Amino acid sequence: MTITVAVDAMGGDVGLKVTVPASIQFLQDHPNANLILVGDQAAIEAELSRHQGVARSRVHIRHATQVVGMDESPQLALKNKKDSSMRVAINLVKEGEAQAAVSAGNTGALMATARFVLKTIPGIERPAIAKMMPSVKGSTCMLDLGANVDCTSEQLLQFGIMGSELVSSITGNANPRVGLLNIGSEDIKGNDSVKRAGEYLRQSELNFIGNVEGNDVYKGTVDVVVCDGFTGNVALKSAEGLAHMIAYFLRQEFTRNWWTRLCALAAMPVLKHFRNRVDPRRYNGASLLGLRGIVVKSHGGTDAVGFRFALEQACEEAGSDVIGHITDRVANQLNNLKQPEPEAN
Amino acid sequence: MTITVAVDAMGGDVGLKVTVPASIQFLQDHPNANLILVGDQAAIEAELSRHQGVARSRVHIRHATQVVGMDESPQLALKNKKDSSMRVAINLVKEGEAQAAVSAGNTGALMATARFVLKTIPGIERPAIAKMMPSVKGSTCMLDLGANVDCTSEQLLQFGIMGSELVSSITGNANPRVGLLNIGSEDIKGNDSVKRAGEYLRQSELNFIGNVEGNDVYKGTVDVVVCDGFTGNVALKSAEGLAHMIAYFLRQEFTRNWWTRLCALAAMPVLKHFRNRVDPRRYNGASLLGLRGIVVKSHGGTDAVGFRFALEQACEEAGSDVIGHITDRVANQLNNLKQPEPEAN
Repeated sequence: MTITVAVDAMGGDVGLKVTVPASIQFLQDHPNANLILVGDQAAIEAELSRHQGVARSRVHIRHATQVVGMDESPQLALKNKKDSSMRVAINLVKEGEAQAAVSAGNTGALMATARFVLKTIPGIERPAIAKMMPSVKGSTCMLDLGANVDCTSEQLLQFGIMGSELVSSITGNANPRVGLLNIGSEDIKGNDSVKRAGEYLRQSELNFIGNVEGNDVYKGTVDVVVCDGFTGNVALKSAEGLAHMIAYFLRQEFTRNWWTRLCALAAMPVLKHFRNRVDPRRYNGASLLGLRGIVVKSHGGTDAVGFRFALEQACEEAGSDVIGHITDRVANQLNNLKQPEPEAN
Repeated sequence: MTITVAVDAMGGDVGLKVTVPASIQFLQDHPNANLILVGDQAAIEAELSRHQGVARSRVHIRHATQVVGMDESPQLALKNKKDSSMRVAINLVKEGEAQAAVSAGNTGALMATARFVLKTIPGIERPAIAKMMPSVKGSTCMLDLGANVDCTSEQLLQFGIMGSELVSSITGNANPRVGLLNIGSEDIKGNDSVKRAGEYLRQSELNFIGNVEGNDVYKGTVDVVVCDGFTGNVALKSAEGLAHMIAYFLRQEFTRNWWTRLCALAAMPVLKHFRNRVDPRRYNGASLLGLRGIVVKSHGGTDAVGFRFALEQACEEAGSDVIGHITDRVANQLNNLKQPEPEAN
């Protein structure tokens, strides 16, 4: 199956110098994929011409006259930037010319635009941001990571369904374990919305294993962790901050003097292997789940290596029909909820 | 000044084998401090007799017949365990026999008992759990870390005052920078309670610098990070989980084969220095702030080194009159809030 991904070539802190090299590398690794680079045609052509080995027959360019700024208000972007590289890339998904869109642009604007253009899947009230996080056992899908500050119990259930379908579509794990992020394993913990979400999840067809705590994300206790966007965003950024601090301390210790630098030299092969394993670029690419089309958000400050991973994520989702699976599962869940309880004898 | 700390000698996953050695070491480092070890007298005596160099004149024992279980319900502990080592240690603070109490026992029971026995400072609705977290610039005080699932804006303001006073009492920094944990730096971010707390904090006399994000805790952007107990607990545990994962990967990489083990040997002095720097035991000891007495919670699973750091924390708080400072600041803040707004001309 040929998969076409629309790329917001102008998005992110850097733009073309990241998106174009990443696209070229991605095409070399995926002989069946096509890309549509959206943005300033002349600038994209110029950047492409600077690289060797470009599979030109599989790179298409779609001109767009505008760019959404990284700090631009989502509402203003939606209203005034109808020919932005971001909006045109999403339009390509809506029109069926591409099976997925990838952007490293402004998260708020991307979410607002994607929601406006693509609409949500029936039964999904609001889309969520989902991301595969590293764990000692492989990876854990966590959602929502910041799209929804306050979430109802029903929305948390919907996030559970979406996360479960994303994991099973991509990994082939037919029955992913789902956990509800809380501050203790007992059912009585948490605020009302979380407690009721626990009841809904227990009643659902999901493989719900109960409450999990922040550390379970990285322990790999479950395959999917469900939370509201405020908590998820804080948890994600806290862990990112700690990782930076640890990397900073490690670098500082190994560069303290000539003797520690010698130690670093001796340990270099191992340290490189370790760094590669925890490289956040390998986990770049968050999915805007719940829309009638695949949209992947790359970190705004990533480089070409990181952006290529976001393209991979989009390609995998498109190849495994995540949207179809979520749509079916939500419809099924809604039907179950609608059925009246059997009368007690 | 002589400081006396009451120790719940039976609390924690291990109990006496951790609390007693930690107490002995603490007394060796603090020639002006006294300890009252609370618990089973015979068992404490037996454990003390196994160690050399015990400053017996400064170790007192207070017999208590009960122990609160690590999974016991706080309400049941409060009702049925009136002679527990935890309760008696807190009573000693209430009665003025000790200036602080330290326990590695059940957090919920400790908070419920401390609140019942000591009561809150006038103007503080609910106590919070505060902890010094490591940062690239030193440390950041974060609160609440799990005592209050839902927090009003007024409570978040109170947490800001308490955190600010804790930091200034202990570090001597007269004007600690206070940040409000949110998912973006703009004032419009977050739920209603967080947004209104931002307004209160801006109007207060605190050195409030605005919203901060999860990564700012470890960056050292501010000295105090204010959040509700649900978010704070998830953020803390997420970071703990990530730290464990990184340590696990590092160990795995260095023990992969004989060659990587040789690399580890070469890098050992540096790795040891690094490990010491990020050792979570050095940050053990969370303060139950807002009570009319000092209570420090040690991690339940820590060892003697970690428990000693919790004793240090209690001793520092007692020596710097944190409670007095919080009481004055809250009274002052309440007076300011009560004054009517000046009429506009």
